[in-house]
Amino acid sequence: MGAVKTKRMPRAVREQQMLDAAVQIFGQRGYMAASMDEIAELAGVSKPLVYLYLNSKEDLFTACIRREAKALVEAVRAGVRPDLAADRQLWEGLGAFFAHTARNPDAWAVLHLQARTHGEPFASEVTAMREEIVAFVTQLILAAAREAHRDPDLPEREVAGLAEALVGAAESLAAWANATPGVTARQAAATMMNFAWAGLGDLMAGRPWSPPEEQQAGVQVGQASAATA
Amino acid sequence: MGAVKTKRMPRAVREQQMLDAAVQIFGQRGYMAASMDEIAELAGVSKPLVYLYLNSKEDLFTACIRREAKALVEAVRAGVRPDLAADRQLWEGLGAFFAHTARNPDAWAVLHLQARTHGEPFASEVTAMREEIVAFVTQLILAAAREAHRDPDLPEREVAGLAEALVGAAESLAAWANATPGVTARQAAATMMNFAWAGLGDLMAGRPWSPPEEQQAGVQVGQASAATA
Repeated sequence: MGAVKTKRMPRAVREQQMLDAAVQIFGQRGYMAASMDEIAELAGVSKPLVYLYLNSKEDLFTACIRREAKALVEAVRAGVRPDLAADRQLWEGLGAFFAHTARNPDAWAVLHLQARTHGEPFASEVTAMREEIVAFVTQLILAAAREAHRDPDLPEREVAGLAEALVGAAESLAAWANATPGVTARQAAATMMNFAWAGLGDLMAGRPWSPPEEQQAGVQVGQASAATA
Repeated sequence: MGAVKTKRMPRAVREQQMLDAAVQIFGQRGYMAASMDEIAELAGVSKPLVYLYLNSKEDLFTACIRREAKALVEAVRAGVRPDLAADRQLWEGLGAFFAHTARNPDAWAVLHLQARTHGEPFASEVTAMREEIVAFVTQLILAAAREAHRDPDLPEREVAGLAEALVGAAESLAAWANATPGVTARQAAATMMNFAWAGLGDLMAGRPWSPPEEQQAGVQVGQASAATA
């Protein structure tokens, strides 16, 4: 009877094992090529049990996206200590982000690539996570602006744009770091800080990059509105 | 006979009209929801003619991605004057990029969202374009490093990471600018320069952001390797 007992696990534990296996297979093979047979085998359960618990390949994939999106957002939030200066908070947040994506490359492939590459309803799941991270970064930039007493100088729209740029840069860099042998999470975070903070830092110090004169030949932008700087 | 003549167009012209209509419908409705009926109607041709010329919905979508990827890369390249200083080249390149994506929002939705959201072979088409733009930005950063006499200080890997970050930031910002009423191409380019150049500028001036000490509590990165800074 002991042998039977060790095989019996609570449903919640079994489900997590199935999700572990599914994230690995979806991340490495891609959503289309991933087979439920392979996922069941890797999880050490029967395929009917996977369907009984998770219903369908689509629902299993959605459950993977939800779990991994939650884990990533929690890792970033847990990495930040709100009592520090804004640049240190950003460094810690980026460190936590790149450490998490480096430790969970299959989960990152699911979120960054697979979930966006197979239409709805998967793309919406990732969009929700992304909006949460953009809101978090927006608060960090606003805190930095307050610290630098630049609060009124930076219009809300500029802050929103900077947050979008920062998140896009970090997403792109995480995909590159995971695909490039030998790039550590710390190196990726340091590159990102060099790019983002030394940049945001100049901005907070009231030293934006100055665009050339409107009349100058060779400027290729279509609109003639004033630069936000 | 004159009336017939005006209706007869060279195949190449007809094809471009079909692609114009397809980019608009794919960009606005999404790949899955786009109907060949609607595309044919918007192009002012019969549906059988669309299939005769472009073969299938999949081939039509691939043709749209190829044409729009080529147009975007050409717009960026044409916007840059190689005789200028690196920051001016970057400003012009970003200006050309944001002007092009603002003028062609449907094309940008096809490239940035639709092509990546519907699996292969579409995703590979966009990856090729992206690699070309990353290579172009890498050359700009190397030129900036040479100008600042920082060439040997910046390892190849750091430059590659900065280029990935910059392209990811610009992609993210273009999607946000197109989705946010009232944000002009010039404003997006100025925000991007504030973020990227004031940042890269500090880096080129030998002023990277300094990471805190390794031992400091609260740093959440997993690896202990030296920061690239």
